[in-house]
This record gives sequence, C-alpha cells and structure tokens, in this order.
Amino acid sequence: MPKISDKGRKMPASPIRKLVPYADKAKKEGVTVFHLNIGQPDIPTPDSMIRAMHELDQKVIEYSHSAGILSCRQKMCEYYKKHGINVEPDEIIIGAGASEAILFGVMTCLNPGDEIIIPEPFYANYNGFATTAGVNVKPIPSSIETGFALPPIEEFEKAISPKTKAIMVCNPNNPTGYLYSKEELEVLRKIVKKYDLYLFADEVYREFCYDGYTHHSVMNLEGIENNVVLFDSVSKRYSACGIRIGAMISRNREVMQTALKFAQARLSPPSLGQIAAEAAMDTPESYFDEIIAEYLARRNTVVKALSGMEGVICPTPKGAFYVTPSLPIDDSDRYCQWLLEEFRHENQTVMLAPATGFYATPGEGKKEVRISYVLNVERLEKAMKCIEVSLREYPGRTI
Amino acid sequence: MPKISDKGRKMPASPIRKLVPYADKAKKEGVTVFHLNIGQPDIPTPDSMIRAMHELDQKVIEYSHSAGILSCRQKMCEYYKKHGINVEPDEIIIGAGASEAILFGVMTCLNPGDEIIIPEPFYANYNGFATTAGVNVKPIPSSIETGFALPPIEEFEKAISPKTKAIMVCNPNNPTGYLYSKEELEVLRKIVKKYDLYLFADEVYREFCYDGYTHHSVMNLEGIENNVVLFDSVSKRYSACGIRIGAMISRNREVMQTALKFAQARLSPPSLGQIAAEAAMDTPESYFDEIIAEYLARRNTVVKALSGMEGVICPTPKGAFYVTPSLPIDDSDRYCQWLLEEFRHENQTVMLAPATGFYATPGEGKKEVRISYVLNVERLEKAMKCIEVSLREYPGRTI
Repeated sequence: MPKISDKGRKMPASPIRKLVPYADKAKKEGVTVFHLNIGQPDIPTPDSMIRAMHELDQKVIEYSHSAGILSCRQKMCEYYKKHGINVEPDEIIIGAGASEAILFGVMTCLNPGDEIIIPEPFYANYNGFATTAGVNVKPIPSSIETGFALPPIEEFEKAISPKTKAIMVCNPNNPTGYLYSKEELEVLRKIVKKYDLYLFADEVYREFCYDGYTHHSVMNLEGIENNVVLFDSVSKRYSACGIRIGAMISRNREVMQTALKFAQARLSPPSLGQIAAEAAMDTPESYFDEIIAEYLARRNTVVKALSGMEGVICPTPKGAFYVTPSLPIDDSDRYCQWLLEEFRHENQTVMLAPATGFYATPGEGKKEVRISYVLNVERLEKAMKCIEVSLREYPGRTI
Repeated sequence: MPKISDKGRKMPASPIRKLVPYADKAKKEGVTVFHLNIGQPDIPTPDSMIRAMHELDQKVIEYSHSAGILSCRQKMCEYYKKHGINVEPDEIIIGAGASEAILFGVMTCLNPGDEIIIPEPFYANYNGFATTAGVNVKPIPSSIETGFALPPIEEFEKAISPKTKAIMVCNPNNPTGYLYSKEELEVLRKIVKKYDLYLFADEVYREFCYDGYTHHSVMNLEGIENNVVLFDSVSKRYSACGIRIGAMISRNREVMQTALKFAQARLSPPSLGQIAAEAAMDTPESYFDEIIAEYLARRNTVVKALSGMEGVICPTPKGAFYVTPSLPIDDSDRYCQWLLEEFRHENQTVMLAPATGFYATPGEGKKEVRISYVLNVERLEKAMKCIEVSLREYPGRTI
C-alpha cells in the first residue's frame, strides 16, 4: 500500500470535527444540542437569491470565465463602491468560497517554506491553507485583556525574518469578533510598507459591525496598493454559505495575472452560485439593518450572560458573530467534549469550539472557547444557562 | 512591490488562452469562429437538473458536509452500481469539479518533488495541478501511429525512478479520444502492483464510447484496491459544466481520511450544484443513447473529413468527444493563431487547440491539434471545410 503524503499527515484535523460523533450521540439520545460551534448562520438566504434559481432560464449550465462571470464581477464592483472601495472587474477573481480565493492568494504570493505572520487566535482553516501551500504560519499573540486588539508593532517586528512574505488579518475577526480601528490598520500599513510584505485581509464580515463602529478596508490604505490582497465572501454575507462564492481582490496586476493561471487550471468557479450571488447584490440595505439588529441583540445576550458568570472573562466584540471568552476550565478540548458526552441541563447541552484550534502556539487556547451567536435570542438564553450550570459542575473547573 | 511565488511563475498558461484575444478580434470583425477548441458541450443540460433549481425549497442555502451531501453521494453509488462499480458513500469525496478532486488526490498522495508518470499527450490542466502540488510530471510517449494506445510496459519501467509515486491515465482520453482496452488496464494493474504506485484515473468521459466498445474502470482491477484513486465529474457527464461537481473515489481508507482533511479546510463543495447533480442522476439512460448517437455522427463527420485531407493523419477514437489529428503544418501554435488572425473562408474560421499544450516534452505536438466535436454536424462540416482550405493556404504548410 503506497504511503500518503507528508502534507496529508500534517494537515490539521479540526478540533470541532473530533466532537461531531459526541454531538451525534447526544442527539440520538434525545438531548437538545445548541450548536454554537459553527459559522453557519440561521438567517434566511435573501429571496432574490432563491428567486434567481427559480427563474433560471439557461439551456446549458456552462463553465463561466475562470475569473468569474463578468456581470457578477461588475455587480461586485458596484457593491464595493457603495462601501467606499473602488475596484475594477479585472481586479477580482471569483473563487469557490473565500477558501479557494485564499488558496489562490497564498499559492500566488508565497513559496513553500516562506512565512506568514498571523495574530492569534485566528481562523483555524488558515492552518489548512498554509499546510496545503507548504507555508509556515508565525503566530504573534493578541490578548483577551485588550479584547484581542492588533498586537503592537514590536511584536510584528520581532516575528519578521528573511522568510517572512506576508501578514494576514481577519477583520472583523473570526474567532474573536474584534474590529480593527483605523489606527491599527495604519500600523499594518507602515509595517507592510517598511518590509515590503503582502498584506492579506479576510474581510468576510465587513457588514457585521455594532455600536456605531464602521469597518475600514485594507483596500483603502494608501501607498501599499501592490501589497494588499483582499479575500471576501458573498456566500457568508448573504447567509448562503452553500453557494460557495468568494473572491480574491488586488490592484497588483502581476498578482492577479498569476492567480488567474491557478484559476484557469480549475476552469471555472460555480456558475449557479454566481448567478445567485449576482442576484444577492441587489438585496436592499434594509436586509442588513434587520440582520445587524438581530445579531446585536444576540451578541448582547451572550456577552451579558457570560460576563455575569464567575471566573469568565468576556470582551464585547464590535463585529462578526463570534465571541471568544476565557472560562474557568482546565482544558477547552476536554470541557467541550464533556459538555456533549456527560453534561445535561434540562436534557439540553451546547456544542462549542475549543479555542485550541485557533492557536498555532502549542498549549494556547486551553481556557478559551469560540461561541458563534448564530441562534436566536431565546435559544441563546437557554444555551447560556447551560454554560452557566456546566461551569459549576465541570470536574476540571479551576475556581 | 513584493515578488510573486516561483510556483506562480511556473504555472503553465494555457496555449488556448493566448489565442482568445485573436478569436475575440475576429468575432468583432464579424467573422464566424467555429469553436472546436473547448470541452464545453452544446448538448442541453437535462431538464431534471434545471427543474431541481426551479423547485429549490430551502430557506437557507447551507454548507454541505465537507465530503458532499450524503444523499448525493448515495445517488452516485447507485449510478456506479449500474456501471458495475461497487462503492460506498464514504469512499466518495465530492469536489468543486473533477479539478478540485484531482488536486485533493495529488495533495493527499504525493510529496513535492515526487514524480507522476502520464502518457502524453495528456489533459493540459494536469500540468497545472502538478505545479500547484510541486509534483513533477514524467511524460511517456503514446503515438498517433497506434491511435495513442497505452505505451508498452517497458516505457513505464524506463520512466520509474525512486521518486515515482503514481501513474495517471485519462480514459477515454482527453485530448486523443483513445479508449483503453481491458488488456491495457491489465498492463497498468501489473505495473502498479509491482512498484506499489498509486493509479490515478480520470474517467470523466465513461459514457462516451462508440462502435460497440465499452468502458472498463480501474475500480474493478483486482488486487490494487488500495492503489486506485478515481476522478470523476457529474458536471461534464450531464453537460452542466458550470455546476462544478466532481468526485474523488478510493477504497483506500487512509487516502480518503486524509483527503477529507483537505476537503474540510475548504468547508464544503457547492450545494446548489450538488442538488442539481443529485437530480441529474435520475436522468434516464435514453438521454445518453441520444447524445451518444449525436456524438458518433459528429465524430464520423470529423474523422471522415480529416482523413480525406492531404497529409493529415487522423485516428478514429472510440471515446470522449475529442480527436487529435496530425496536420501537414510547421507549428500548431502558429497555425492556430494564423487561423484566427489571417485565415478566412466565406467569412468563417475555426479555433483549435494546439497540441503543444498537451505535451510535457518540449517540442512535441507541433504537428497536432485537438479538435473537440462539440458542435452539430452542420456546423462541423463547415468547420472541416475551413480546415481543408486553410491547409492549402497556410504559409507554414509542410507538403
């Protein structure tokens, strides 16, 4: 039997996936499991997208242009314009989700063995993309005490080596919900310019900002136009994760021409998804007003409940739909498994994501979990009650 | 400005893409361009697939399982059973087209620097996947004199080195249309077993066999169950290339578990495409009967016309919808560009794929072109007339 690849062996298995069999078992036993572990929102997909499928009038569902259907990219440009970002259709390559777009970006810009600096905790799948491309992630710590703000410039400079080729940020952040300020982006601009690095930014949660704060895009940082590569998702924005439509965007011509070769090798992004995505971008702004009001209520429910629990530290994130609190527990992997395997409160329990999966530094994240507030307030309240009770009963509690 | 990656520089640009601006210019001038350069069939997508979109009744278009929607994989198993191939749903990972599936397979099984033997000419994008994975393609020659039959076992053995990890075949073949016999598959079985290599097979054109010949799958080769990885496409089979639904299939548990980690890193294959694909697999066999009759008429039109042209060698392929003839020309890249730029016959011309893109050996394929017979007979006849006239007028003709 031939051996599998070293890359395959190194590919990180998601710590959430390990928990799935325990969740399935609990559900089989009739236990209600509140899923706070996933980024799959419960918000309905906009009617316009469903209607685009109901009205599909093609005789042949053809390949699209490898960079995506032109009219879809044009719609994207209109969308970005509304958000103060000026881009042209040929500065956009549509990918099968932001996932594929990120892979194109990493493959285009970094050689195997190159390093990419990412403040941790960070979105676990960045590890997967790095392993796929043979690139090494150099984590630098962000701290729960600052609500997971951007690490100071000295931390970046300490981490920079001759192999450093890029910095990656997610803004608003998954898993922390942290929204970077204009000043923090200025720090990134300076360092990227000084060391001539790529700046990769995942701005998938751009719309999801709370408390009157607004999102600032890396695309508007002056003087580093050739360094910036933006990753985005239409699927996630419009609660249509399954359509798998994301994008890689850059003003760097050489980067885009090279990325297009990777895109051409796989022929075409999904056409049906693109048709739905194009329709989505006509969704009125009021759609987001409602959703953001809903997420705000959810965030407040979660943060208020968690902050009232003994030994819990919970920042108030200004964006996305995640929060990463610190809990009085010995080991988040063990705690999350115990919740599913043993803990029951009124025949209910919760599934959480252990934060260990969001750190590249071994041993980090053992006291933290990521909570996705993708359930309605009523269910979230029940879920928070479960967490509260569980923290009193958990054998590995530290207070 | 930071440098792009070595991989990015090495990524092959498709020779067809270079021709696109010339085709666009001709069309702008009012010239009819017959597109024989692409694998985009003109056959209508089955009604069942379009209907599945018209009847879409989901409120939220969610992520699917990373390996694909279970019911879709179950349908695939039924489909394979009808074709004499027994597989289980957990032996299938659905990819965004066969393209993604191939990338998962290569990443799972081969290390950067490993070698993969492929008889040439071969599907040009294999070069792209190999470059992406940092793997080296070792081509071995198949010859137009044998209709591009499998090279003899000695050619494989000559090419095998300590770095050889896999053999890849496409059956029926793109670009040659060659259909491997049971005996040829037996040769592959022996060599794969003897050297414990992976056998990758792209069987995307399984249904498209002519003249009473039938397709034999590598999945039924005994004693090498752990070596075989099958790549397939639902999109291509049902003339719905844009849905991007393919699959990686293997009975090797370790390979599938490892590939699943790559699949998990990108979360989910396209959900809309999977819903359409599941519906497609209820398409009655009569759909293929009609289409195969149509393709057979097209193949006969093309082969008969080409065989009657002076200096042209044209095998009669038994499968797929491609033929790769040898023409009396100096350089297929130059000839294909000249067709678009300068040649006109009754204000018409043809776009062909220079075969140079299907060879890894430099200098090979200069006398050959790939013709995709994806147009109806009437248009094909006009296109063949163009080729005939062009071969008399082409300044670089060799007879």
